[in-house]
Amino acid sequence: MKVAILGATGMVGQYLVSLLQGHPWFETEVLAASDRSAGKKYREAAHWIHPSQMPSGIGEMEVANSDVKSVEELGSPDIIFSCLPSDIAGGVEEEFASAGYPVFSKAANHRLEEDVPLIIPEVNPSHATLVDFQKEKRGWQGFITTDPNCSTTQLVLSLFPLVQFDLSKVMVTTMQALSGAGYPGVPSLDANANVIPFISKEEEKLESETLKLLGEFDGEKIIPAELKLSATCTRVPVQHGHLESVTVSLEAKPSLEEVKEAWASFEGEPLKLGLPSAVKPIRYREENDRPQPRLDCDEGNGMTIVLGRLRMDPILDYKYLCLGHNVVRGAAGEGILQAELFKAKGLI
Amino acid sequence: MKVAILGATGMVGQYLVSLLQGHPWFETEVLAASDRSAGKKYREAAHWIHPSQMPSGIGEMEVANSDVKSVEELGSPDIIFSCLPSDIAGGVEEEFASAGYPVFSKAANHRLEEDVPLIIPEVNPSHATLVDFQKEKRGWQGFITTDPNCSTTQLVLSLFPLVQFDLSKVMVTTMQALSGAGYPGVPSLDANANVIPFISKEEEKLESETLKLLGEFDGEKIIPAELKLSATCTRVPVQHGHLESVTVSLEAKPSLEEVKEAWASFEGEPLKLGLPSAVKPIRYREENDRPQPRLDCDEGNGMTIVLGRLRMDPILDYKYLCLGHNVVRGAAGEGILQAELFKAKGLI
Amino acid sequence: MKVAILGATGMVGQYLVSLLQGHPWFETEVLAASDRSAGKKYREAAHWIHPSQMPSGIGEMEVANSDVKSVEELGSPDIIFSCLPSDIAGGVEEEFASAGYPVFSKAANHRLEEDVPLIIPEVNPSHATLVDFQKEKRGWQGFITTDPNCSTTQLVLSLFPLVQFDLSKVMVTTMQALSGAGYPGVPSLDANANVIPFISKEEEKLESETLKLLGEFDGEKIIPAELKLSATCTRVPVQHGHLESVTVSLEAKPSLEEVKEAWASFEGEPLKLGLPSAVKPIRYREENDRPQPRLDCDEGNGMTIVLGRLRMDPILDYKYLCLGHNVVRGAAGEGILQAELFKAKGLI
Amino acid sequence: MKVAILGATGMVGQYLVSLLQGHPWFETEVLAASDRSAGKKYREAAHWIHPSQMPSGIGEMEVANSDVKSVEELGSPDIIFSCLPSDIAGGVEEEFASAGYPVFSKAANHRLEEDVPLIIPEVNPSHATLVDFQKEKRGWQGFITTDPNCSTTQLVLSLFPLVQFDLSKVMVTTMQALSGAGYPGVPSLDANANVIPFISKEEEKLESETLKLLGEFDGEKIIPAELKLSATCTRVPVQHGHLESVTVSLEAKPSLEEVKEAWASFEGEPLKLGLPSAVKPIRYREENDRPQPRLDCDEGNGMTIVLGRLRMDPILDYKYLCLGHNVVRGAAGEGILQAELFKAKGLI
Repeated sequence: MKVAILGATGMVGQYLVSLLQGHPWFETEVLAASDRSAGKKYREAAHWIHPSQMPSGIGEMEVANSDVKSVEELGSPDIIFSCLPSDIAGGVEEEFASAGYPVFSKAANHRLEEDVPLIIPEVNPSHATLVDFQKEKRGWQGFITTDPNCSTTQLVLSLFPLVQFDLSKVMVTTMQALSGAGYPGVPSLDANANVIPFISKEEEKLESETLKLLGEFDGEKIIPAELKLSATCTRVPVQHGHLESVTVSLEAKPSLEEVKEAWASFEGEPLKLGLPSAVKPIRYREENDRPQPRLDCDEGNGMTIVLGRLRMDPILDYKYLCLGHNVVRGAAGEGILQAELFKAKGLI
Repeated sequence: MKVAILGATGMVGQYLVSLLQGHPWFETEVLAASDRSAGKKYREAAHWIHPSQMPSGIGEMEVANSDVKSVEELGSPDIIFSCLPSDIAGGVEEEFASAGYPVFSKAANHRLEEDVPLIIPEVNPSHATLVDFQKEKRGWQGFITTDPNCSTTQLVLSLFPLVQFDLSKVMVTTMQALSGAGYPGVPSLDANANVIPFISKEEEKLESETLKLLGEFDGEKIIPAELKLSATCTRVPVQHGHLESVTVSLEAKPSLEEVKEAWASFEGEPLKLGLPSAVKPIRYREENDRPQPRLDCDEGNGMTIVLGRLRMDPILDYKYLCLGHNVVRGAAGEGILQAELFKAKGLI
Repeated sequence: MKVAILGATGMVGQYLVSLLQGHPWFETEVLAASDRSAGKKYREAAHWIHPSQMPSGIGEMEVANSDVKSVEELGSPDIIFSCLPSDIAGGVEEEFASAGYPVFSKAANHRLEEDVPLIIPEVNPSHATLVDFQKEKRGWQGFITTDPNCSTTQLVLSLFPLVQFDLSKVMVTTMQALSGAGYPGVPSLDANANVIPFISKEEEKLESETLKLLGEFDGEKIIPAELKLSATCTRVPVQHGHLESVTVSLEAKPSLEEVKEAWASFEGEPLKLGLPSAVKPIRYREENDRPQPRLDCDEGNGMTIVLGRLRMDPILDYKYLCLGHNVVRGAAGEGILQAELFKAKGLI
Repeated sequence: MKVAILGATGMVGQYLVSLLQGHPWFETEVLAASDRSAGKKYREAAHWIHPSQMPSGIGEMEVANSDVKSVEELGSPDIIFSCLPSDIAGGVEEEFASAGYPVFSKAANHRLEEDVPLIIPEVNPSHATLVDFQKEKRGWQGFITTDPNCSTTQLVLSLFPLVQFDLSKVMVTTMQALSGAGYPGVPSLDANANVIPFISKEEEKLESETLKLLGEFDGEKIIPAELKLSATCTRVPVQHGHLESVTVSLEAKPSLEEVKEAWASFEGEPLKLGLPSAVKPIRYREENDRPQPRLDCDEGNGMTIVLGRLRMDPILDYKYLCLGHNVVRGAAGEGILQAELFKAKGLI
């Protein structure tokens, strides 16, 4: 299937370009960005910051403007990945969906809309069919589906295997990596040897998206999970990998071993379906000083979250540390895995 | 009063040396350290890392061994500050106390002993008279009194004005500075662009010391506060200033304004007594991205903690961020303030 | 004298605002910035990043646009400090000078013009009178005078006492702090745990400005020094303080002690004139691991450069390390010292 | 061939363990360290800091003491890699060589001895046969051969293709990574957001080893190259990758293109011999802000050095930036490549 990437020059766009190189199902056909970049070669338009080299051939591709007409002049994609900034993503994604394209969006704009799926493939793959209602309701040939915010994805992956124990409360303090703010993102004068105890709208996203992700799909809409969630989000001078200090109440009071076993045995539908990007989603480490962002964020090609330090909590019930690669698991890799899921389910 | 500093060559010792320069009541008379340093000039024995220059005259002083006989050969101090590492502090501090010296200890060894005060001068100054019982019980002319662990001091300073609202639960995730581990402390290969989610024994100290600090002194012993406390401690690549994400239950359910007012109006006995090192102990900042370690840790010469982002919490009741200078408020400055308190109370 | 600051909301502008607080001669009267900030209160227009608190009263001042008319509506300044970005500084500074104002510019635009002084007060104070020719030639009542680039100022301060030994060649590799790029400046994703071996136009500035600074003023123009200079400039993840590895040829072949003595005895005209901001301009440290940016950049309130590790060089003759506070000595403090010099000389 | 690693628990030892995993010629058989580690399992003795996971099976191996008897009790190795610290490496390496083992040493102790090879396989592979003289002279069945210091290896790799242009002078200022100091190495309190302008003995090593590496082997000894070299070494807060600002005189005055062509066409004997670890030794990048340590140090699995910013120099002739992975190219990978060279030449 041929892919167009909207917002291809940004950081998440670059990770998509890299991850799609040599992908067995998807091939990058059109790279689109803002009108400032349109018409230039990708090599000139993008300030390449991905650690790997730019895939060969990509640098010479002409960049399209992020609208249907411009994209169709340069190719005929089957699916659209959107990494557009949220100030313009909303309308552009609707334009593509109404023009018949399946749009896999990394932007926050549509995540909480009633007829738009918000999906972690291992957690709520059944929500994918919500796009059928969306198409019908909106009268579109195409559709929009979305990924969660990066700090939400890894948290919910760690929580989902605990739902069976009657998960009722979640408190989280995050220590988020610089790359979570995109590029150019946080000025080095602010971030250098410092912690910034605020990330705009991040706490709200964590609290609202989690409820939708863990919610029930009744065939027409998602009924949010009943769950109390409290988040404090901070930025630390780390390149990649959000670290989260998580405390939860589990009404069924499992033993620590039962919790670890729930994580260890969790696989999710992507592995069962044999999706190309599927990995073991969770690794638990027994060392008392892990997970660490710099050492652990690349686990499972950045798609495996790493947990550690599970112990009893005297106020809620259990606490642990949770780490995930915010750009891979939390954005680019997540989007590709979702597209693979849709293809495997025959939705694209 | 003449002062001897045990462990004078370490980081906290250097801060004591600097803070005592020009102090109106105390004068550094003897610098003691391990036998590896004893006999050398202080300039040669100490790898000076304090940001200010070494006070004049200090560099040429001969370093004593950290035992009573060696210290008395070089001076006749009135009080002892001990910044010894905990593997040797216990016995040495007892030796000095039994020899008649008042010992102000920064080490953890004696903090939780029943007849040893653990004091934050603004929080529990009345606990100071516990030393009378200690002297009687142990048959000593001198005594040992202690400071809390650095991450505890700032937390409890922020909690104490809330006790009036029936404080019942405290959850905290810390992001602690490199200097909290002393010198040489954390290897740069571990800390650089990373977060280490574990600090040995730190969570236990936070949980146990807080109960004693907020406890009641019944005339003979401290009855620990009844309080549930849960701590997760991490290390971040920041020079000075521990940042803490704190969530609390206050059974009296004050308004956010009442909480802020409680902090704003809090002064504590040191200011009332006019102690030389006393400052306004708490500053609350309204900006949504403060406190930040690099910008705020020097507030009030490092003796004022800085709070911010107070807001309602859906699980417990309130949450906020708390920052303090771990070496000044959390160790050297704290020790001097406590000694000033003891002097003002006629205990030394 | 009343001062207007153009570009007052940027990082150098903030340092000027802070350094002018309580200044015995100068008082901040007008704060001007771009039209995006004009009309707002300074507190709202500026993202305050200076480590000290905003001086009281400053936050409530209304920001003017950076043109003569807007500034004159809000005050009647005697002198102008310009910290404008170089893309607009050129024209605006000329507008103010032609309107009769003495303009002290931190921008690069006019530095190399034949009739514009480029001044380090300790090095070439006599060049100041070039403004008389400028006024005559351009038919202005006011004038423009300039500071060097930050990496140049500290280098030339270290070189000037060596000119007596027939300085003929200078090679320098710089390791420059993040704040040298202003705010927001370098993205943290680029700078974090990295070195960037390129700073746009910096090497050219170092090479050309040095020759003018060390040049001879023949009464009408500056005859550039005859000197070979080679610079390589890099950016390191340090907050403040440019470190420079310098190698020089001195044809008179002084001993190492003679070189140190030349630095130690150097005072410069500002100290002799008793200018308020004058300090001992150079400190040499004998420790083999100094100067270090974080430990030494605040020496002499940031106005003293710190040198170290002087030793023989087998290719040229001598090598040493040179450190200066790029925002204070290299920009804001330097500008104030120059204005003091002009006032002391009766040029304003 | 079976390999014993002396100093296997340290950082370079860990990289050797990792790089030897799956090696076609060499297999790790014995892990030796100090008597503090001897007898423990490797997993317990080593604080594992390599970014990849410990190879399976390695963790359960018992650690030997670093002496012949202890090593022979746990295996019968064919070759010895020594990553011992220099305070003990000298004698231990001699013990193994005199007992008949070929010793590939990363330590500085024997590097400059007349009958000991100091080898970069691409630069001076012919020096390897010096071991025949060594064996004869010392009456040993085994021998000692050495790698250069990490900052030297990458510098000399960049210089060697320029020797044809009559290289006469080299000036270098290094910005070296934290891992160059081993583990625990530099305290984070010193390195965090700072530059330390001194590395003990590093400048001397750079200056002396380079002359031996580029020297002529007359059949009996190495005649050092005639070359003037001046080095200034600093430490920057970067994980891996030494960056060097290099200036050279080339008497033949080649064009910039000829210099680049000399680098581009350089291959060296390892590639010609098809050694398993051989890669293209040099990559030149045309971007003006490369090489950067974090982005470029893994080039060619860490065995390729990356050069950039070649330009004319007004004092010597040419200048450029040079980057290499100090632990791979500068230590562990280098040692393996040298052992491969010895095997291919029939010297082991």
